[in-house]
Amino acid sequence: MDMHSTDTGISSPQPREEEETPWLSAKEQQFWRAHLEVARLLDYQLGRELQPHNLASNDYEILVVLSESPERRMRMTDLATATLQSKSRLSHQITRMENAGLVLRQDCPGDRRGLYAHLTELGWETMQKVAPDHVRSVRHHFIDRLTPEQIDAMYAALAPIADHLRALRGRA
Amino acid sequence: MDMHSTDTGISSPQPREEEETPWLSAKEQQFWRAHLEVARLLDYQLGRELQPHNLASNDYEILVVLSESPERRMRMTDLATATLQSKSRLSHQITRMENAGLVLRQDCPGDRRGLYAHLTELGWETMQKVAPDHVRSVRHHFIDRLTPEQIDAMYAALAPIADHLRALRGRA
Repeated sequence: MDMHSTDTGISSPQPREEEETPWLSAKEQQFWRAHLEVARLLDYQLGRELQPHNLASNDYEILVVLSESPERRMRMTDLATATLQSKSRLSHQITRMENAGLVLRQDCPGDRRGLYAHLTELGWETMQKVAPDHVRSVRHHFIDRLTPEQIDAMYAALAPIADHLRALRGRA
Repeated sequence: MDMHSTDTGISSPQPREEEETPWLSAKEQQFWRAHLEVARLLDYQLGRELQPHNLASNDYEILVVLSESPERRMRMTDLATATLQSKSRLSHQITRMENAGLVLRQDCPGDRRGLYAHLTELGWETMQKVAPDHVRSVRHHFIDRLTPEQIDAMYAALAPIADHLRALRGRA
């Protein structure tokens, strides 16, 4: 147990609580920190490499989700769920993307459950133009730095955790 | 090569570009998607479990970083780097945390390089109170769902990627 060196604040700050709190071991801590760093730094780097396309990384995700939806549209509430965002934050983002001509917000006649976000033709073209660069970024900074065996092993480890967390989130 | 099913928009949307774009294989895609989901859903869940303490997950990170700094303070620009945030976003966050009495912004006399964020006594106590719950969340939703062998293997895979990304970010 490493009680002193940590960036993650989950080694023991108070020895008197040691008995009851299941502090992380040094190895666990090291791993947890590496996981957090990779998740954040990768998000940052991929976002940076989308900037020349005038897209934020959240924007790209919206384009992808809409392009894969029937009629290239989705109810705003479902889009918030799919992208793990709050409705208010998504609303701001869609406004920005609407101003850029990538999506369009529209009522659905006969559906009282509200507003849809539609992918525009420009949004569709943008996604197709950006995707090859994006996959190169994902490969260069992540996938190609792992062996096929590491990818298999990590997928086997992460998939049940994703299922657990998705169920908690209420989207199981 | 899976050209149809993806949530991540990096399978081929345009067969004619197939020759030159190194699209992800079905396995790679599946893994990339699991990585993104775990990163985001875990961040969401840990944040939710900090809410009863009136903290956002970013707030907790600030408390941890400051508590581990000499004199429990850090220059705002260094804090932005350490927490991978833009200066403007950090500034908003510190304002919120200052209003909650957790941190204090102060000039450092004799140091023209600017403003420091200090951890207050309340901030320190809050972190100590929250840490045991937080470590339980991290264990329950992530660490305890992996075997020691998986943790070792994933750390070995992620550490060089974290090094690569940190160097890119200019903090190597």
